[in-house]
Parts: sequence; C-alpha cells; structure tokens
Amino acid sequence: MGETSTCDVAIIGAGPSGLFAVFECGMLGLSSHVFDALPEIGGQCTALYPEKPIYDIGGLPAISAGDLIANLEAQAAPFNPVYHLGSQVTHLTEGPDGRFTIANERGDTVNAGAIILAAGAGAFGPNRPPIAALPDFENISVFYACRNTAQFTGKKIVIAGGGDSALDWAIALADIAGKVTLVHRRDKFRGAPASVAALERLVGEGKVELAVPFQLSDILGEDGQITHARLTSMDDEIRDIEADALLCFYGLSHDLSFAHEWGLHLEKKELPVNAATCETSRAGIYAVGDIACYEGKLKLILTGFAEGAIAAHAIYKRLHPETPLHFEYSTTRGLPGAA
Amino acid sequence: MGETSTCDVAIIGAGPSGLFAVFECGMLGLSSHVFDALPEIGGQCTALYPEKPIYDIGGLPAISAGDLIANLEAQAAPFNPVYHLGSQVTHLTEGPDGRFTIANERGDTVNAGAIILAAGAGAFGPNRPPIAALPDFENISVFYACRNTAQFTGKKIVIAGGGDSALDWAIALADIAGKVTLVHRRDKFRGAPASVAALERLVGEGKVELAVPFQLSDILGEDGQITHARLTSMDDEIRDIEADALLCFYGLSHDLSFAHEWGLHLEKKELPVNAATCETSRAGIYAVGDIACYEGKLKLILTGFAEGAIAAHAIYKRLHPETPLHFEYSTTRGLPGAA
Repeated sequence: MGETSTCDVAIIGAGPSGLFAVFECGMLGLSSHVFDALPEIGGQCTALYPEKPIYDIGGLPAISAGDLIANLEAQAAPFNPVYHLGSQVTHLTEGPDGRFTIANERGDTVNAGAIILAAGAGAFGPNRPPIAALPDFENISVFYACRNTAQFTGKKIVIAGGGDSALDWAIALADIAGKVTLVHRRDKFRGAPASVAALERLVGEGKVELAVPFQLSDILGEDGQITHARLTSMDDEIRDIEADALLCFYGLSHDLSFAHEWGLHLEKKELPVNAATCETSRAGIYAVGDIACYEGKLKLILTGFAEGAIAAHAIYKRLHPETPLHFEYSTTRGLPGAA
Repeated sequence: MGETSTCDVAIIGAGPSGLFAVFECGMLGLSSHVFDALPEIGGQCTALYPEKPIYDIGGLPAISAGDLIANLEAQAAPFNPVYHLGSQVTHLTEGPDGRFTIANERGDTVNAGAIILAAGAGAFGPNRPPIAALPDFENISVFYACRNTAQFTGKKIVIAGGGDSALDWAIALADIAGKVTLVHRRDKFRGAPASVAALERLVGEGKVELAVPFQLSDILGEDGQITHARLTSMDDEIRDIEADALLCFYGLSHDLSFAHEWGLHLEKKELPVNAATCETSRAGIYAVGDIACYEGKLKLILTGFAEGAIAAHAIYKRLHPETPLHFEYSTTRGLPGAA
C-alpha cells in the first residue's frame, strides 16, 4: 500500500446515491473519498442503461441516466471528492479512535471518520454466458450494456436474454439496426406486459426475429469481431445466425460478502438501517440507496438522495459532537465549498 | 356549494412537495386534486423567492425556485391534476366509507379517498406593517416578494426588514437599482454572517444606504404609486425617503388552525407522522414536506419529494387493499399516465 489519505467520509459506491452523498456531506463541510469497483462513476445508470430516460426524479420531468450522472458529478464537484474507481474495496479496519481505514485491491488507502455504503445491489458485473472465447470479443463486438445505439445503425444484431433489458433493447434497436434477432432459452419473456406486447408487434411486422427456445452456445469470428452467433436448441438443433454485434442481457451478479466480513447485519441482501440516521448495525458505518432498508423503504433514486442528506447530518454529529450544526439552506448561503 | 368532484387524493398545498406528490400518486394510477390558498402554484418558492437559485435538489446542480416549480408542474401534468387555487380549504368531513369531503372558501368541493397535507409552514401570507394606506399600493409599488428584479433597474428602492430576505435583496438590487435604502428598527441584522458582511461592504462603497434604527411608519404617494417612505425613529425623528418602490420583508404569518379543527395531533407547529407511511395521527390523512415531522426529519425540498413517494405508496395500499402494487420503475415502463 502507498500513502494513506485522510478525509471525513469514505463513500463506497459511485452510483447516484453515492454521488449525491458527496454533495450533502460537502454542504456540511465534510470531505469525501469515493470508491467503486466499476471503472466509471454512475453505477447501474452508467453501466446498464445510460441512454434510458428517467421520469421520476423530483424536479426533472425527464433525463437520461447518463445525463443524471453528469449532473450529479457537477453537483458534487465543488466539494472536490477524490474518486478511486475500477478497484474493489477489500479492506476495512477500525482504529481505537473510532476512525476507519479502508483500502481497495489496488492499494489506495483512506482513513475516514465515517463510512457511507452506497453499493446498490452490491459490487456487480454482468452475468456472462459460459463461452470460452467470450473475453476475446468483449467490448469489441460483444456487449453487456448498450451505451451508444448509433454504433448499431444498419448492423445485424443478436440480443440474448428474456428479461426487460433484452426486450427494451430489441424494441429500441428494431428501427435502427439492419436486423435484430432475439435469442431466449424459453418461448415466454419475463418483461413488463407492455414491452412483451410491443415486441410481439415488431415480430409481426418482421422488424425483430425470434430464436426461441434456443440458447447461445458459441461465438464465431476472429480478432474480436463476431460473424455468427451459434445457437443450440433443447434437442440439440444448431443454428448459426449472422451477427455484427452480440448483446447479452443475463442480469447482474452481486457480491455482498463484504457485509459479512465487516460485521454488518444483512437481511435479504440488504442492510437494515436506523431510518433517522441511516446508520447500519455497526456504529460509524452508514448505508444509503438500494442497499439500505427500513420500514416503508422505497427503492427509488430520489429516496437515495434523501438518505444521503440524512446520513450526512448524522455523520456531522458523530464527527463534531460538540459543535451544533448551524443548518442553512442553499438558497440562503449558496454552496459553502464554492466560496 | 356546487357539484362535488371525486378523486383518489386531495392534496392541500401546491408547493414543491404537493406538486411532486401529484406525480408520485399518478405513477401509481391515483388521481389528484390540489388546493392552495395562494393564487399561484409553487408555495414559498413562487411567493417569496422565485428568482433565487437552489443548489440542493438531487440531479439539479442549480435551478431557480421559479424554474423548479415550472419543472414540477410539467412533471405532474401527464396525470391531469385539478388545481383549486386562491382559496383556503375550510371544510373537511369523513364519511362512513372512510372517504373525505373537503371544500375551500369558494365552495369547490372534492370527495377523496385520502388527504395529503403539503401545507409547508401552514396557509401563509406576508406579515404586513400596520399602515392604513398599504392595500392601495400593494402589487403596484409595494411588494412582499421580489419576482422580477429587472423592474427595479435604475429605481429608488426602499427595503424594510432585518432578516435574510431583506439583506439578500438589498445585496441583489445594489447593482441594479438606482438607489437602495435599507430600513430596520434595530442597528443589528439577523441574517447569515456572510450576508451581513456583504451588506457592510456595500454600505462602505455607498451602494446601499442604511436607515437604522428606524421604523416604516407611513407611505406617501397617490394612485398606488409611492413617492416617499416615511420612517420614524425610536425618539420620534421623522425622515421621508424618496422611493419608486418599497419592498417589505417582515416574515410570514402562519395559520395552522385547521390541524386542531380536523383532530390532527400537532407538535411545535408540525404534524408528527409515521415515517414509514407519512400518515398523521388520523387515518387517511397524510403529511409531507416541511409540515411533517418524524425522528431525523430534515426540512429539505428533496426530503419532501421522498415523502411524497412514501405517502403515495401508503395511500395505494389504503385504497386498494386487495391489489398488491406491481412496483415498476419509470425506466422500465415510462409514465403510466402518458400511455
């Protein structure tokens, strides 16, 4: 490990709740370092659906997930958060002074007065189909998220999966791609009824072709460029489908093992918190966003924002027990860090 | 009273929390009517500080209060809320079916399955100085809020009051108006230290003139157009200050008498709610925003947004106890009302 940085709050998770926690901490004069296993900020918003519009952020009638993250980054920026991306936090210890030392796999080490866990569904990555050649094609012609629809204009696209993401992108790309084939190992889809209806309409119009019940069994091509997706049916029928790109939507893999290691009480893959403070079962460790649970909890981005404010205020009291918080509104004072 | 309209939820208060509650109810298929004593939507945002920037709405790095209200109105619009503005709600009864009938002074009558109180600090209006001629000048040359700074360009402005609003507008208008005189009955100001310092700097530069300790005692002028503000000192010295406009910032008057009348438990001018549902002491009546209190409550606009979501979900369960809520994200389904 290299040098140890010091700050008020170490935030684990750079999704919307974690980013807004930087802002709320900053408004109270608390400095932050932010850790995320993903190489970019934004969590699921960036990794899974950057181009999808979100309608239920208060005050934002419609915004793409990517733009929301850009806004949250700009909102946090005046408070100079330090980002440690692309490496998972693996180490947490508490000193006799009640401060924490955390480090990621790369060895970035931070000493912080409090921890905010904003880890969403846990450190995640895409579930991958069991195909040996897969790594050679990833991010060249095989993708687990759709970041830029324009790159698929006129192309032959194979989409694998049966849930909402697979359906949504089959629908979204039907008018952009040259050909869309949707592969699913069952003949029923798990998506929202409206999406299933929209898909059936597109299949009827010849804009999407179904390959069901088939399973993706291999990738043909070279130098990372797929030429065909090989499909196998339940009775071993093999079909090779021409493809310029393959999009796999098999869900996310979650890893919440850190919770056990750090002595945090976990309930159904969530961390119960005191709703008045967002503190977990361990003093000094707080949780906000989808990973936090309490009675009446709603898993909404705007709920994560409110929890960030609650956690920041509770942490202020933990770190400055003698100094009453002189609560001020941004309309009165503007941004303290921006002075 | 005229005809009675029927809806799922009657929302009292058209400030940011009330407007966003319309959206959250709409997302669950619940229709809303919205009541407010003020003639415009927006509550304090519109009435007191429409041009002030707000920095602490999640996802919005900076937005004026007026633009925030415009966004919230647009966000609520797909769900067709019915607004009843400019008349105070004076009547509430509960039927044997557990539904409520509410009516305002004008006689607009609505039957609703649940009530959301989003009344902020209560039905409010500006505190007025005790000057008989005042009503003749209001909204012509005497104002209690600053809606449009441009109208004061080059003018002689007298500002009365000693708190943050008076200070903020003295500072904001110092470079726009021809002359700014700030009248306060004491020689100390109650505003934020940074604002007091900024004011002192402007006084030193001759951009703001102080008249302290003086009290506003009369208005001279005719046809609604002020020519002079008459000031009186503690030892009865009278001073007439030339003025094209007078801005009075004496705070807000609150009226929470409805809470007693409706049998709601009130604590320190706030309504205690169950944080998991936002329900008040009376079943079927919910409270969100600044008027609602619970352990850990923060009076922030974004907290009011989250409470609107919580109340909407609780109301859905109240009105549809047999139908489990199929919870869906706006990213998955878009806006149900906009289909």
